[in-house]
Amino acid sequence: MFAFFLPKEFNFFDLFERQVGHAVDAAQCFKALVSKDPTDEAMLQRMREIEHQGDEVTHQILYHLNKTFITPFDREDIHALAKELDDIIDMLYTITNRLRVYKVSGVDKNLVEFASVIEDSVRSVASAVKGMRHMKNLASISEACVEVNRLENVGDSMRDAVLAELFENGKDPIHVIKWKEIYQDAETVLDICEDVVHVVQSILVKQA
Amino acid sequence: MFAFFLPKEFNFFDLFERQVGHAVDAAQCFKALVSKDPTDEAMLQRMREIEHQGDEVTHQILYHLNKTFITPFDREDIHALAKELDDIIDMLYTITNRLRVYKVSGVDKNLVEFASVIEDSVRSVASAVKGMRHMKNLASISEACVEVNRLENVGDSMRDAVLAELFENGKDPIHVIKWKEIYQDAETVLDICEDVVHVVQSILVKQA
Amino acid sequence: MFAFFLPKEFNFFDLFERQVGHAVDAAQCFKALVSKDPTDEAMLQRMREIEHQGDEVTHQILYHLNKTFITPFDREDIHALAKELDDIIDMLYTITNRLRVYKVSGVDKNLVEFASVIEDSVRSVASAVKGMRHMKNLASISEACVEVNRLENVGDSMRDAVLAELFENGKDPIHVIKWKEIYQDAETVLDICEDVVHVVQSILVKQA
Repeated sequence: MFAFFLPKEFNFFDLFERQVGHAVDAAQCFKALVSKDPTDEAMLQRMREIEHQGDEVTHQILYHLNKTFITPFDREDIHALAKELDDIIDMLYTITNRLRVYKVSGVDKNLVEFASVIEDSVRSVASAVKGMRHMKNLASISEACVEVNRLENVGDSMRDAVLAELFENGKDPIHVIKWKEIYQDAETVLDICEDVVHVVQSILVKQA
Repeated sequence: MFAFFLPKEFNFFDLFERQVGHAVDAAQCFKALVSKDPTDEAMLQRMREIEHQGDEVTHQILYHLNKTFITPFDREDIHALAKELDDIIDMLYTITNRLRVYKVSGVDKNLVEFASVIEDSVRSVASAVKGMRHMKNLASISEACVEVNRLENVGDSMRDAVLAELFENGKDPIHVIKWKEIYQDAETVLDICEDVVHVVQSILVKQA
Repeated sequence: MFAFFLPKEFNFFDLFERQVGHAVDAAQCFKALVSKDPTDEAMLQRMREIEHQGDEVTHQILYHLNKTFITPFDREDIHALAKELDDIIDMLYTITNRLRVYKVSGVDKNLVEFASVIEDSVRSVASAVKGMRHMKNLASISEACVEVNRLENVGDSMRDAVLAELFENGKDPIHVIKWKEIYQDAETVLDICEDVVHVVQSILVKQA
C-alpha cells in the first residue's frame, strides 16, 4: 500500500550491467589493439565509441541517483561504483590515446601481457557486479572479488619487473619516459578494478 | 515562526562567489604570467597571494559547513564544490611554481594558448556558480556548463597535439620531462573545471 | 534501557590508535632504510609487513563502519580518516619499492632529510589522532595539527629546492626521471599527513 506513493523504483542493476559490459568491451578492444598495431585507426575509433557509451551510462546512473528517493543500496556506494567503472574505461582509453600521441608502433609483449591480466580482471569485476542483482550466490561474488585482488598483486609484480627492465636496458630516456607512464597506467587499471570490488564488498557487508 | 529556533542560515552563496572570484583572478594572473616572463617575481608573489586567499575562503566554507545545520543544497555537494574550486587555484599555482623551479624562461606559445582556454573556462565556471544563487536563469547556467565541457575537449586535443610535437621535436629529454608535466597540468585545470560544473549540474538536477 | 537493543558499540579509537601506530612504524622504518642502504632486503621485508598490518586494520575499520549503527563521529569522517592513514603507509611503501625497482643505491642526503620531516609529521599526526579519544586536551590536538601544517610547508620548500638542484646538476635524464618521482612522492606523504589533520579538525569543529 505504501508503494502507491513511491516513485517507480529505478532499476540501477540494469544500468550497472550495461556499464560493466562496456568495461569488458573496452578491455577486449584494448587487448586486440595492443596485440596488433596499436595505431590501427579503426580500433582507436572503436575505443573512442566505447568511451562515449561508458560516459553516457555513467551520466544516466548519476542522473537517476539524483532523481530517485529509494535506492537498492547506499547512495554513496552507487555513486562510487558508477565512477569507478567509468574510470576503468577512461583509463583504458587514455592508454590507447597515449600510444597514438607518443607514436608507439610495434607490439610490446609486456603490454600484451598486461592487457591479458586486465581483461581477466575486468571479467571478474563484471561477475561481481552482475552477481549483486540477486545477492543469493554470495560465494561466487566473493570468489570474483578475490580473483580481482589476486590479479592486482600480479599486476604490481609485473609493473615492478618491466620498470626494472626498462631502466636497466633503456638507454634512450625518451623511450623510458613514454613506457614508464604506459606501464604505470596499465597497472592503475588493475588498481581501479580492485577499488570496484571494494565497493561491492562494502555493499555486501551492509546487507548481510 | 519556525525560523525563530533556527540558527541564522549561513550564506554559502556569498562565499562561493568570493571563491570563484579568486579562481578567475588566478586564471587572469596565470595568463599574464605566461604571456610575459614566467619568472617575474612580482607576478609570482601575486599568484601566491591569490592561492592564500583561495585557501582562506575554502576553510571558511568547510568550517561553516560543519557548523551549519541547514544548507541550501546537499552537504556533500557544498564540500565537493569548495574542494574543486580550490583545486583550480592550487593547480594554477602549482604550474606557476614549476615554471620557477624548473627555471623555464621565455614565452611558450602553446602554454599561452592553454592559458587563454583556461581563462575562458574559469569564467564560464564563474557564471555557472554565480547563477546558482537564484536558480531562475537555468538556461544560462546550463549554457555555461556546456561551454566548460566544450573547452575541456578543446584542451584534450591541444594537449595531444603539443605532446606529439614535444616528443617528435624534443631531442633534449630534460626539456621533455619539464614540458610534458606542465602541459599535462594545464590540461588538468580544464578537467577540474569540468568537475565543478558536474557538481553544479547535479545540484540543479536535485532541485528540479 | 535503550542500550539493551543496541549492538555493543565498536571501539573505533582502539583501531585508529593501532593504525596510526603502524604509520609511525612505517615512518621510522623508512628513515632507517634511506639512512643506510636503501636496498637492505631485511628492511624492505619489514616495510612490506607494516604495509600488510596497515591494510589489515584499515579493512577492520571499514568492516566495522559498515556493521555499526552508532559511531563516535560522522561515518564519512571515519572512512576518510581510515583511508588517509592507510595512504600514508602505502605511499611510504611505494617509495621504498621504487628505490628497489630503480636499483637506487647509496644514501641520498635529501631523501634522509625528507624522511626526518616525514617522521616528525607522522608523530604529530599520531598525537592528533590519539588525542581524539578524550577530546579534552583540545589545545594539544590543535598544536599537533598546526605542526603537521607547518611541516607540509617545510616539505614544499624542500621539494622545490631539491628539484631545482636536480634539474640544474642532473645531466643524466634517467637519474632525473627516477629522483623527480621519488622526491615528489616524499612530499606527497606530507600532503597526506595534512589531509589527516584536516579530517581531525573537521571532527573537532562538529563536536564543539
